[in-house]
Amino acid sequence: MLPRTYIGQACSIAATLEVVGDRWTLLILRDAELGVTRFADFQHSLGLARTVLSDRLARLTGEGILERVRYQDHPERFEYRLTDKGHALWPVLNALMNWGDTYIMGGQAPVTIRHRDCGGPIDEHRICTACGARISSRDIERQPGPGARPPAAATS
Amino acid sequence: MLPRTYIGQACSIAATLEVVGDRWTLLILRDAELGVTRFADFQHSLGLARTVLSDRLARLTGEGILERVRYQDHPERFEYRLTDKGHALWPVLNALMNWGDTYIMGGQAPVTIRHRDCGGPIDEHRICTACGARISSRDIERQPGPGARPPAAATS
Repeated sequence: MLPRTYIGQACSIAATLEVVGDRWTLLILRDAELGVTRFADFQHSLGLARTVLSDRLARLTGEGILERVRYQDHPERFEYRLTDKGHALWPVLNALMNWGDTYIMGGQAPVTIRHRDCGGPIDEHRICTACGARISSRDIERQPGPGARPPAAATS
Repeated sequence: MLPRTYIGQACSIAATLEVVGDRWTLLILRDAELGVTRFADFQHSLGLARTVLSDRLARLTGEGILERVRYQDHPERFEYRLTDKGHALWPVLNALMNWGDTYIMGGQAPVTIRHRDCGGPIDEHRICTACGARISSRDIERQPGPGARPPAAATS
């Protein structure tokens, strides 16, 4: 164990939470991983206030986690794409998902992920159990899992 | 990509964030992993208001992530210990740490972790690069890393 006085001095966990330690921010990143890019689509998916979404997207763009790209000129419209720095947050999302699958969904994962190249299942260490590849967010495909229906319906 | 309408139905990421998606909660869990157990020590480490700390500890205890254990009778005093369910959140903390080490600390990790049994370094997949063991929070020891001093001092 590190001495107590050390903990707060320079902590990468605290520093990362300063950037992404907000529930909406993490849900925006989840949606971005699922392919959402446009303001209206984030808003539709998350149901949050325009001002809050606008603030969070500006923050993520400022941090270099999302890139704001013009996709239409008249009127000017932008979309938001994950950068490499943004994709590098996927292990956080994946760890949150794994814990929820086990401890909230009772092992009935709503979404399962597979290795795109070989179709193998991916374990909690982000390793393909079929071919042994180390998996990043770009290597996966998602499928509805055994808990894909709302929990209330699944238990009735 | 999953259909948009599917995303919100049952999502283990959103569900987990309902439980631990609060910056203080994640910092409490970080401290708990570092061995902090007592109310006053959490408060000293985090510098948060008693009411907020009390609320978060009660929530985590209610969720079965921390266990409240009496360690003194007169006056009655309690400490908070991670349960297995609580230790299972370590991959989230570890992923936050790894990202911060790379993208905020510029590769100068304030804390490095090693496999307690063999002393080997642990990679971002929570695997010991020396012996290949899959690592859980109980298998690690922490050491100050190259970025152990405050960033301001380290760059001067």
